[in-house]
Amino acid sequence: MNMNTRNIIGFSESEGTGKTLQGVNPVTNIMIDDKFYISSDEDVNKALIKADLAFTTFKQSSADDRAKFLDNIADEMEALGETLVKRASLETGLPEARIIGERGRTTGQLRMFANYIREGSYVEASIDTAIPDRVPVPKPDLRKMMVPLGPVVVFGASNFPLAYSVAGGDTAAALAAGCPVLVKAHPGHPGTSALVGGAIIKAAKETGMPDGVFSLLFDAGFSVGKALVGHPSTKAVGFTGSLGGGRALFDIAANRESPIPVFAEMGSINPSILLPQALNVRAEQVAEAYAGSITMGAGQFCTNPGLIMGIAGEGLNSFITKLSAAIEKAQPYTMLHSGISEAYRNKKQDMAEQLNVKFISQASIDATKSEGQPTLAKAPGAEFINNPKLHEEVFGPFSLIIECKDKTELKECCAMLSGQLTTTIIGEDDEFTDYPDLINELQEKAGRIIFNGIPTGVEVCPSMVHGGPYPATTDSRFTAVGNESIKRFLRPVCFQDAPEVVLPLALQNENSLNIWRLINGELKKDSI
Amino acid sequence: MNMNTRNIIGFSESEGTGKTLQGVNPVTNIMIDDKFYISSDEDVNKALIKADLAFTTFKQSSADDRAKFLDNIADEMEALGETLVKRASLETGLPEARIIGERGRTTGQLRMFANYIREGSYVEASIDTAIPDRVPVPKPDLRKMMVPLGPVVVFGASNFPLAYSVAGGDTAAALAAGCPVLVKAHPGHPGTSALVGGAIIKAAKETGMPDGVFSLLFDAGFSVGKALVGHPSTKAVGFTGSLGGGRALFDIAANRESPIPVFAEMGSINPSILLPQALNVRAEQVAEAYAGSITMGAGQFCTNPGLIMGIAGEGLNSFITKLSAAIEKAQPYTMLHSGISEAYRNKKQDMAEQLNVKFISQASIDATKSEGQPTLAKAPGAEFINNPKLHEEVFGPFSLIIECKDKTELKECCAMLSGQLTTTIIGEDDEFTDYPDLINELQEKAGRIIFNGIPTGVEVCPSMVHGGPYPATTDSRFTAVGNESIKRFLRPVCFQDAPEVVLPLALQNENSLNIWRLINGELKKDSI
Repeated sequence: MNMNTRNIIGFSESEGTGKTLQGVNPVTNIMIDDKFYISSDEDVNKALIKADLAFTTFKQSSADDRAKFLDNIADEMEALGETLVKRASLETGLPEARIIGERGRTTGQLRMFANYIREGSYVEASIDTAIPDRVPVPKPDLRKMMVPLGPVVVFGASNFPLAYSVAGGDTAAALAAGCPVLVKAHPGHPGTSALVGGAIIKAAKETGMPDGVFSLLFDAGFSVGKALVGHPSTKAVGFTGSLGGGRALFDIAANRESPIPVFAEMGSINPSILLPQALNVRAEQVAEAYAGSITMGAGQFCTNPGLIMGIAGEGLNSFITKLSAAIEKAQPYTMLHSGISEAYRNKKQDMAEQLNVKFISQASIDATKSEGQPTLAKAPGAEFINNPKLHEEVFGPFSLIIECKDKTELKECCAMLSGQLTTTIIGEDDEFTDYPDLINELQEKAGRIIFNGIPTGVEVCPSMVHGGPYPATTDSRFTAVGNESIKRFLRPVCFQDAPEVVLPLALQNENSLNIWRLINGELKKDSI
Repeated sequence: MNMNTRNIIGFSESEGTGKTLQGVNPVTNIMIDDKFYISSDEDVNKALIKADLAFTTFKQSSADDRAKFLDNIADEMEALGETLVKRASLETGLPEARIIGERGRTTGQLRMFANYIREGSYVEASIDTAIPDRVPVPKPDLRKMMVPLGPVVVFGASNFPLAYSVAGGDTAAALAAGCPVLVKAHPGHPGTSALVGGAIIKAAKETGMPDGVFSLLFDAGFSVGKALVGHPSTKAVGFTGSLGGGRALFDIAANRESPIPVFAEMGSINPSILLPQALNVRAEQVAEAYAGSITMGAGQFCTNPGLIMGIAGEGLNSFITKLSAAIEKAQPYTMLHSGISEAYRNKKQDMAEQLNVKFISQASIDATKSEGQPTLAKAPGAEFINNPKLHEEVFGPFSLIIECKDKTELKECCAMLSGQLTTTIIGEDDEFTDYPDLINELQEKAGRIIFNGIPTGVEVCPSMVHGGPYPATTDSRFTAVGNESIKRFLRPVCFQDAPEVVLPLALQNENSLNIWRLINGELKKDSI
């Protein structure tokens, strides 16, 4: 199969600046053959003009038509078979089994959104009927529903080359909403991006979607991303990656003449609190679960448990002993690219130099330069309270254990936490009731609070919240995963006294879509 | 009744900097006696420390308790009787009848929110039950609901001294959500603000709300506002006012170390499109309605129709003749303060100096310096397309008619529009179907599209959208009026595998609140 190395601008292609970038095999650190063309400013402009034009029809497409498009993308991704799996593995160093699993999640997400919009209630239709004889003034007829925002720019993440990349959650949610999507390909996996981008274009053509509904642009640096976010036609941005990257995009978007929302999911240290009774009962079991969670995918998950807090005592000692032993036995894995493995070593070094931080365990097999060596460190609670450096993420298979002298210090440590994607609390059922303030506090800090589990593993379903207060994300009011992530790309529009003939189907008297609607404040499926 | 002229810092009061500000009677331009103390930095800090502390209990209060608080605020506002009505009229120049009407809307809003949270489904509870035997991994139990963001800063608007001020829509929505509120009083109506602030504190004490649930701070300039928005404890901002003011707050919030959302409703020119057939049939009737809408409240509504567009012809001529005559007969009214009446004169002057803009009618009675003279201007469509000055708001009883040479030019003019709170289209029912692109376009430009009506008049109900794309607001995804405006101050939190004992009532197996919940993706009121 010949790899398309050109930028995808709707249904056409471009060699952009003529300059190229290449993927790198992170295991060997050797460049992979195909040269991908770097986009020009003209490409960005063309892609957005096409997206704007596509939007005029795409926003009016039926949910059924968009659902077919999403299903078809999933089918086309699967049809790429081994080509896609091998390429993604080659470019990221992630094992093929993991890529196959991630492909399942990605196609599952696309099909989930297809079914979600087919059901149709996501438009949140609301109808308040007129009261013409109301005094002192008549009440008009008001009907409201959610409509798509417009062209959405998506930045693929390096750590999930499929599920958070070209046809990942942001793209699926935006397309489901009726927004054209422009993806800035992550330079870490250009071939994977090109393959999936091609699958989307094939699906768009097969299902009669407009030219411009999707574009894919390559860049090794930041200028294409900046141009995409700064373009007046762009109406929202989805991003998964570092705090620095996400904040830079947020700042560009906020400083536009017409500001736009940026949904940046920037990871976190996902603190876990271990309560003493639970550790007394099952320190070994908890330690095993955490060893798996810390080292999973070379620690490159946004929900990786980077911080574990407990109260000094036998239970915690026993947990630390067991976790240390498990980490020693852990296998170093290849990280996503040399930049990441280097950053991991540097960040660990930084951490090692902090006062009273002790490295207590690491994998007994030495990691190569491209691998991340599983590592465990420890520091006293007082140090965590005093030194903000200890709150920083060390992206990789690393965790810092904070040993608090008592319940009060544990609570103080928790109060110091910044915004997180998740917080986890391990305790016995009757133990939780002793810590109401702590549980309350943890809820303030994160979008999801996990009981007796591990932070890794993000279920795709209506109740999922993959989000949280800054700096975990730039907008705590939305989730980046699950059905409700579609809300990021919708806004409400109200029709006042509109004749039936101009009303969208969802707001007409007859409920032909059979969706839930709020009629004069009451949820029902009746027609009017 | 002695006026409290001190800053309200929760249940205590402060004379702040010791410096004072005074209200001004806009009719006479003479200062009103009471001197209100300007807040100090310490006041801001104290109020936010109190708000943070109050939040820890307020967020856990039952919806019933918060509903009682809101109802009580309405009662206490009414109990102020004539004192409040006379003071608001004195400070704003608005007639007492208008103030009484606005008080009804304000107390109505408070009671609406009370009932809305009593019903309880606004927390959007969603439960996905566990599937322990799912392969390859078990599905955890996930439960999600909306929780309050934290302390909210509200900036009162000058043009609605009650409904968009101290106990207005933003405050009611934030308190209903469970967020403590800090109001920066508008310096245009300090006495009105103090009276309503006192009513809120009385209600808070009577219903057992925590100290710090509400504060009211005075300032003649910008420093208190800046300090409030920049304070790390502030979690969101509500603002109604000018584009300059709203954007300045947005910029402060976006540049914080931890950015926060700003919901600024910054007004618009509310374009109305008059289709030819409708004007042929009922030009006079439409002209009458618009004359009322343009001059209502001295044109000081954010939904004032500042722009009217039509296609040249007999119908439009007849409309212009009739509207001109009605404007000539209109009465000049006192504007809110001398700054506003002066700005109105200057903005009109600016408009008069634009190429091809003709002033075609004004009220025959000369306005005094404190009044706004109703005025009508006209310009050709080509000029509107070329000159962005013609798109700017002239805050007051002014409207600009754009005469387009044909359907195409009308569509081009509409495409040039920036974001609006409302767009209106006047047409015969069978005429609308000739303009599908135009209606489509108008929908892109605004939060609400009105058919055969006038833009003034904002219904408080679930289907209302008082919002729209920038620069009408800073966040088109939310409404500032109606039940759903509560969403601005909520964020989702997910509980994973939480034992019943720590779950909030809304997420427990038994649906004791009898609210709508999404159970495994299906809306129901059943228990689990």
